Amino acid sequence: MSLRYAYLGPAGTFTEAALRQVADPSSDELIPLGDVPAALQAVREGRADRAMVPIENSVEGGVSATMDALSSGVPLVVVGEAVVRVEFVLVARRGTTLEQVRHISTHPHAWAQCRRWLTAHLPHAMHLPASSTAAAGAALVESGEAGFEAAITAPLTAEEYGLDVLAAGIGNNPHAVTRFIQVAAPGPIPPRTGADKTTLMVHLPDNQAGALLTMLEQFAARGVNLSRIESRPIGDSLGRYSFSIDAEEHIEDERLAAALVGLHQVCPLVRFLGSFPRNDGGHAEQVPTGFSDEKFRAARTWVDQLRAGVHPD
Amino acid sequence: MSLRYAYLGPAGTFTEAALRQVADPSSDELIPLGDVPAALQAVREGRADRAMVPIENSVEGGVSATMDALSSGVPLVVVGEAVVRVEFVLVARRGTTLEQVRHISTHPHAWAQCRRWLTAHLPHAMHLPASSTAAAGAALVESGEAGFEAAITAPLTAEEYGLDVLAAGIGNNPHAVTRFIQVAAPGPIPPRTGADKTTLMVHLPDNQAGALLTMLEQFAARGVNLSRIESRPIGDSLGRYSFSIDAEEHIEDERLAAALVGLHQVCPLVRFLGSFPRNDGGHAEQVPTGFSDEKFRAARTWVDQLRAGVHPD
Amino acid sequence: MSLRYAYLGPAGTFTEAALRQVADPSSDELIPLGDVPAALQAVREGRADRAMVPIENSVEGGVSATMDALSSGVPLVVVGEAVVRVEFVLVARRGTTLEQVRHISTHPHAWAQCRRWLTAHLPHAMHLPASSTAAAGAALVESGEAGFEAAITAPLTAEEYGLDVLAAGIGNNPHAVTRFIQVAAPGPIPPRTGADKTTLMVHLPDNQAGALLTMLEQFAARGVNLSRIESRPIGDSLGRYSFSIDAEEHIEDERLAAALVGLHQVCPLVRFLGSFPRNDGGHAEQVPTGFSDEKFRAARTWVDQLRAGVHPD
Amino acid sequence: MSLRYAYLGPAGTFTEAALRQVADPSSDELIPLGDVPAALQAVREGRADRAMVPIENSVEGGVSATMDALSSGVPLVVVGEAVVRVEFVLVARRGTTLEQVRHISTHPHAWAQCRRWLTAHLPHAMHLPASSTAAAGAALVESGEAGFEAAITAPLTAEEYGLDVLAAGIGNNPHAVTRFIQVAAPGPIPPRTGADKTTLMVHLPDNQAGALLTMLEQFAARGVNLSRIESRPIGDSLGRYSFSIDAEEHIEDERLAAALVGLHQVCPLVRFLGSFPRNDGGHAEQVPTGFSDEKFRAARTWVDQLRAGVHPD
Repeated sequence: MSLRYAYLGPAGTFTEAALRQVADPSSDELIPLGDVPAALQAVREGRADRAMVPIENSVEGGVSATMDALSSGVPLVVVGEAVVRVEFVLVARRGTTLEQVRHISTHPHAWAQCRRWLTAHLPHAMHLPASSTAAAGAALVESGEAGFEAAITAPLTAEEYGLDVLAAGIGNNPHAVTRFIQVAAPGPIPPRTGADKTTLMVHLPDNQAGALLTMLEQFAARGVNLSRIESRPIGDSLGRYSFSIDAEEHIEDERLAAALVGLHQVCPLVRFLGSFPRNDGGHAEQVPTGFSDEKFRAARTWVDQLRAGVHPD
Repeated sequence: MSLRYAYLGPAGTFTEAALRQVADPSSDELIPLGDVPAALQAVREGRADRAMVPIENSVEGGVSATMDALSSGVPLVVVGEAVVRVEFVLVARRGTTLEQVRHISTHPHAWAQCRRWLTAHLPHAMHLPASSTAAAGAALVESGEAGFEAAITAPLTAEEYGLDVLAAGIGNNPHAVTRFIQVAAPGPIPPRTGADKTTLMVHLPDNQAGALLTMLEQFAARGVNLSRIESRPIGDSLGRYSFSIDAEEHIEDERLAAALVGLHQVCPLVRFLGSFPRNDGGHAEQVPTGFSDEKFRAARTWVDQLRAGVHPD
Repeated sequence: MSLRYAYLGPAGTFTEAALRQVADPSSDELIPLGDVPAALQAVREGRADRAMVPIENSVEGGVSATMDALSSGVPLVVVGEAVVRVEFVLVARRGTTLEQVRHISTHPHAWAQCRRWLTAHLPHAMHLPASSTAAAGAALVESGEAGFEAAITAPLTAEEYGLDVLAAGIGNNPHAVTRFIQVAAPGPIPPRTGADKTTLMVHLPDNQAGALLTMLEQFAARGVNLSRIESRPIGDSLGRYSFSIDAEEHIEDERLAAALVGLHQVCPLVRFLGSFPRNDGGHAEQVPTGFSDEKFRAARTWVDQLRAGVHPD
Repeated sequence: MSLRYAYLGPAGTFTEAALRQVADPSSDELIPLGDVPAALQAVREGRADRAMVPIENSVEGGVSATMDALSSGVPLVVVGEAVVRVEFVLVARRGTTLEQVRHISTHPHAWAQCRRWLTAHLPHAMHLPASSTAAAGAALVESGEAGFEAAITAPLTAEEYGLDVLAAGIGNNPHAVTRFIQVAAPGPIPPRTGADKTTLMVHLPDNQAGALLTMLEQFAARGVNLSRIESRPIGDSLGRYSFSIDAEEHIEDERLAAALVGLHQVCPLVRFLGSFPRNDGGHAEQVPTGFSDEKFRAARTWVDQLRAGVHPD
């Protein structure tokens, strides 16, 4: 089935690298857009079937723009994820040498993540901020002599634009990865595979001491583990937070469904953002003793029998 | 409907006083039996429709014989409760004066509960243990001159046997009460009234640190309050306990049903001992915010819709 | 050093068997008393140095008389414990045969704990309650022909009174044990051995939901395990409980001291009832990761340094 | 006392507005630096006495650069905070009209926070990213005709550079605020005022289920409230987090000191980042029942007395 994929462009970004893990450029349509909200909006308005956007970086943390755009507006759901190793290269137009580099354009996050190499090798280079690493690479091609001699980009960008790689592997952290999510309009949920993940956004109850504990206990009491929990300000004042959460289960798992019921009871707002197969190199899912679906159903049947006056002891 | 009531006899005990709150001696059959296990056994074997037995005394605590007899063997359920004020009188055969009392027969618990009065007024009296306060009264009538001059009994006993009351209100604690339960064979559960109680017996998971906390969190996470929790040794070794629990809800309340599911998952043994209307002078039931049946069903519907791909946000 | 030991008499009880584990009859003075409060009172009034009383039976549960007597009045502390296997024998005067036994005297608890054997072998025997198993044995010797032909006692009683054993090992549970405690006036605490126990009595905060959870978290948050927790009614009305608790540490262990500080803050009443070497056949004490005294002191030193403006990171 | 303040420059930023709340430009030395790490480094190397940097924005959330720079390297501590209302203006060189604006330079966060006004009034304007709002304003002055006609800045910038304000109050959220912190080298801690805050950074124990719950319980069990909790990736792999936390107490408050001891025991890494007077418009500090310093010291004294064999009951 041919799909239309909106993504955080331009071509050549890490997002495109993630997209290539799931999309087939020969049959699918890839639609680069200027920012995360625009990519999500394309799905909301039916101009794309999917959006591929970054959600979390192992160094920088959660991607606020993505979390916030999913948290309000027309509902969207995550249907899959992809993890991409984040590798940076210093690129220039053919013929440029490292010694000639005085100005470097790149996205501020990329600049921060290469600071160590830059301090060691180009301590006097100046940073010209770009809206993405790929945009910096594209500008290098287009701008001719003007403004800057080099850019920090993904390896894919160098390849696509035919730029020289002056230095590779210049990131501070060689194990850095970014996790991307595939977002779609609500519809049938990807079937349970046994190694799944559910993404949620919850608001904490107002003005209630221990609210975070209360919320977490809804998961703990049902044996549900969390693989990610990130705070986001609600935005109306300091000190009010929502939490972006990944739980290690599928909504078809009874223990997660029960935890969702509990969350819906204790939290003023819960948004379900999808259940989908895990693809993050995490550990295999381990069901805590007693919390398997089989045990849950046995427990539920026991209660139903008791209500009917039948005592199976 | 005429019912056969087994109870902890003989006639004249506090248990009979409890029984009179619910049974009609003119139409129901009252069957006094020698001990709690015998009364429960009568129900188990169909020789009685109900058993009335003590479960808890405000001074002495839980009645072990009752808790233990309900915890194993053929299942029985509690269908009602009655609370009786525990008042003690010192009784004697007509003509006996207080000065003549040297030996007093009564149940050891009654002796303990009147110790203060006895120390003040009859410091040299000797205790002859009896199997019940009513048995002590009966023996006084039957024994003629032999053995003891007085007995400590319930007021009802003095009345029934025509004994003289030498002193009334001799208990240490004028507010002492005993709670009795009506026990029946499993069958239709008394309908929910909105001020109900559910009695449970649970074993804790073996060798697991924090097991009691884990068990209690099953209630707390669902907003269920407990009005009674009492430990009982499991009996195979020191340090292993079961807990006898009263929760402030009916099994038809969704939050209690959900807590039961959770208990069944985390505890090696859970015995449901009935849901029934409260009659213990306790506070009115208050549903914690978010935990009403209406909210529970809304939450459950929300999860069901999500599973079907419908996002009601 | 010669000591005066009050104990729950008469001679020949299981309590005396416990006492013999620690006292030397040739040098110490053993003082049998009629009930637990009397034994404790002897210590309170200086007529005895120690009292040996039962606290817990593996079948019957906690001994209410002991827990209650320690919970109020002049403070006493536990300085040691002893565990005795509870073994019952059916005894009679020389020449009596099993077939001749129609009435049996014993303490009601002993009767209950031998019910299974009695139902099988002497289904028609009648019970004459006695105030202790030893009292039943003594009465058998003294009473001549009157009243009852046999008694259920501890083996020690048969030996002391020269009674015939008609049947041995007649208890329902061959592994039954009773735990006894040695109680003294407050003074120097027995030194920490590394396998200790601390006994406490706490009241829960009034009218506060989740009070039991709050109390238990004071232990859990400091890594302190509980080996026993038993409820006791406070006595003024139904539904108000105190808890008798054994924690697996010594008051000189920093984590227990910290938990005591927390309890004192959240509970309206906490009574420290002693730290003493464990002797209950329990598992060896395992300090949860991070909660050793060494780690505690390192943590405390760290905070003290921070307060002084020193950052040891 | 004259102080040298490093801050996130250039002049005219919101950070300078925060700085003016505490520094006196006539006597103190204000040192604008290019980014947060540079400002903190100036303090670490003794070139400045204080650094003023943003820590949290009510719309964007925590400032990662600040949290990360405080979390490692030479220890620094927070000694104060300042809250600044975040107000955006659209500025241009004298004579420019709104209709002439086609390109706008500003920091990406500012662009995001003004998106609503831009969509309504300048839907076709292009964004040229700048490293700060003040840098965009400065560039407008310096660049002459080149590149862009307008910038989005703080009101202070317009004032300092003499730029025309084409539109004021263009932020999405009129209540948006940013909280800044004053950072210093470790030394004497600002004295307790009774309305204080303590900032911490903690790592969670590795591979342990419920680790976040365990950590939070260290605060809850001691009655300490948290006013902020934000996750940050530790950086070595996905799924490992540290938490940046503000607690509502001073390290001289006994309950906070006790919570720090507990954290140090259960968490592999805890960094104390200072106790200082609150200035965030939050609610007044309320000490939960039982957790006052007075009660803490009474509890501690009680334990010390017990250890000495004195029973104050």
